[in-house]
Amino acid sequence: MVRTALTNMLGIEAPLVGFNRSPAVVAEVSNAGGFGVLGASTFTPAELDAALSWIEEQVGGRPYGVDVLVPGHTAQSDPADLIASLRAQIPQGHRDFVEGLLERYGIPELPAGTPTVATDEIASALATGGGGVEALLDVAFSHRISLVANALGPPPPELVSRAKAAGVPVAGLVGQGKHVANQLEAGVDVLIAQGTEAGGHTGTVATMVLTPEVIELAGSVPVLAAGGIASGPQMAAALALGAAGVWCGSVWLSSTEEVTGEAVKRKYLEATSADTVRSPTRTGKPARQLRTAWHDEWDTLGAPSPLPMPLQPMLVQDAWNRIDAAADAGNEDARALESFFIGQVVGGFRRLRPTAEITREIIADCEARLHELARLTATPGEP
Amino acid sequence: MVRTALTNMLGIEAPLVGFNRSPAVVAEVSNAGGFGVLGASTFTPAELDAALSWIEEQVGGRPYGVDVLVPGHTAQSDPADLIASLRAQIPQGHRDFVEGLLERYGIPELPAGTPTVATDEIASALATGGGGVEALLDVAFSHRISLVANALGPPPPELVSRAKAAGVPVAGLVGQGKHVANQLEAGVDVLIAQGTEAGGHTGTVATMVLTPEVIELAGSVPVLAAGGIASGPQMAAALALGAAGVWCGSVWLSSTEEVTGEAVKRKYLEATSADTVRSPTRTGKPARQLRTAWHDEWDTLGAPSPLPMPLQPMLVQDAWNRIDAAADAGNEDARALESFFIGQVVGGFRRLRPTAEITREIIADCEARLHELARLTATPGEP
Repeated sequence: MVRTALTNMLGIEAPLVGFNRSPAVVAEVSNAGGFGVLGASTFTPAELDAALSWIEEQVGGRPYGVDVLVPGHTAQSDPADLIASLRAQIPQGHRDFVEGLLERYGIPELPAGTPTVATDEIASALATGGGGVEALLDVAFSHRISLVANALGPPPPELVSRAKAAGVPVAGLVGQGKHVANQLEAGVDVLIAQGTEAGGHTGTVATMVLTPEVIELAGSVPVLAAGGIASGPQMAAALALGAAGVWCGSVWLSSTEEVTGEAVKRKYLEATSADTVRSPTRTGKPARQLRTAWHDEWDTLGAPSPLPMPLQPMLVQDAWNRIDAAADAGNEDARALESFFIGQVVGGFRRLRPTAEITREIIADCEARLHELARLTATPGEP
Repeated sequence: MVRTALTNMLGIEAPLVGFNRSPAVVAEVSNAGGFGVLGASTFTPAELDAALSWIEEQVGGRPYGVDVLVPGHTAQSDPADLIASLRAQIPQGHRDFVEGLLERYGIPELPAGTPTVATDEIASALATGGGGVEALLDVAFSHRISLVANALGPPPPELVSRAKAAGVPVAGLVGQGKHVANQLEAGVDVLIAQGTEAGGHTGTVATMVLTPEVIELAGSVPVLAAGGIASGPQMAAALALGAAGVWCGSVWLSSTEEVTGEAVKRKYLEATSADTVRSPTRTGKPARQLRTAWHDEWDTLGAPSPLPMPLQPMLVQDAWNRIDAAADAGNEDARALESFFIGQVVGGFRRLRPTAEITREIIADCEARLHELARLTATPGEP
């Protein structure tokens, strides 16, 4: 039992938020006393509806949340036209580089029927909200979510007004102090201060520095610390910085329930904390990921510069679909390239464990550390 | 009063180490209940003797320490020959780039008699220990130091054996988990885990991740956290991570006693936490510093790649002597280039304050935060 402004707001036992794209992880975090948030950026409305219904069956009455990708500005053009226009902006030299890389590593075409991440949907979602934003929000608010977060930038007015009407708090993520004002103006109820050590899109300022800076700027809005937090001592450190709780992402990649492919998870278990890199080669924006031969190739003299978002993911997503499939099928060269988003906490991964075990251990170890800390200042003779 | 393995080892009131090159800062930190460590990498034996004598007059019986630069391997060649040979390795294109940069910014030659950092001495010290290592150690151990730290890499046997004979604990600094074993084998009594957010030479792993990783590898050797620590909450967070104390460097650059030039300190007060960069353009190894026009110039297409240590400092130190002097004299273009080592905590600098005030505030705020944390886990009704 650790009580903060977040546990009061969400009605949870401990201020640990678990963010993941696997519904099973979300449900297990909530069931173990934390608060699961489904990362639904790449979900269709139908997929989101199925996932949230399933989560609700698992968690009984326990609260959970959802994270969607709603761009602040939406284009009005036809999605098919837009995708064609974006595709035309990708230089042939970039296509040749990626194709040549796949050839040199002997990465085969995808076997027919392989499930993949759909490139056009990603591009469309990133550029316009894909026309599906309203439908996604319809689905989200038709379920009994207790928090809605927006993955990139301040939440747009339509998201905030729907959330306020439904009595659902809105969370926004910042990587620099200067982004706090926009989030507060947009009307967020919770801020997530994400340090550079986090996986995925991240800035350059570390959690130790960013968290107190955001807290000072946030006024009465509770701040969660994100980045570098995968253990009880790290959760206690975040609370010591003044955070109302922690937002953990990477640690669930070491869980048995997480849906990331086996080849990637095996590389995570072997990695050290120094084996990640903040690179724009996957999404067009700097995102922390496991450093592999993929990044060496993009660092080679003569390699093209990564394109901006959303062109870079349109350029490379098909390549990643092929690399992932080949790596999971045992292709050694594909395993050398294989990578995915992950934070510096990957260095602490020892084996895959059930999400519930990870959650309970972080919370229990945090409580134990808080009790130990109290003894550092006790005068001799006191307990 | 915060008691840890470090306060027991050093006989101090709170586990706060203040590292700085200004004797006045060192004395004030020790007098305010922390432990001052003089960064003496660029000191001659005579300068070190004077500084340590002066510190001892200020602190009465209170303990303090010293940080020297002793390379693990020492060359046997004549220093003058060595410097000439190193100078010959600097390409003319690099010299032209630096000279052109100074011309474009209108940086004048140094006025006669300006005190400067001696380029040859730095190069010599970095490459060989300058022949002065033994003399420096003679001076250090002729004073009543309570800790000796080695600035770069594991301490060499001659340093460790002299320290053991004198009963002085030895501290070693690591930026990656894989460096811990070498430090323990060399015989260090204290480890400093320095995260990427620190000023000066630093790795890529953040304090939040590095500290518990080093603690796990260090066994019974106490670990101090460094990088990102300039306030009581940050000190409490380090203790929550399991550190036996904190090693603070950058925060003293916001003190009135610190000897860094006024032009640099003014830029620090205006900087945000996102305004630093880990760059090899000053020393030849990645070191965190204030990002300025200097770094833009080295990032320009066509600029040369920085040289390795010790060639890069030999190439640029005279330029920095000129830039520093011109900036302090009010030259605006020099102020645009002006930079120095600093960590991400620079974003929290508001005004210059006495070292004693900074020290006392960090310790008092840390204690207060530890008491607040204890209340997060208290059951309702308890105090």
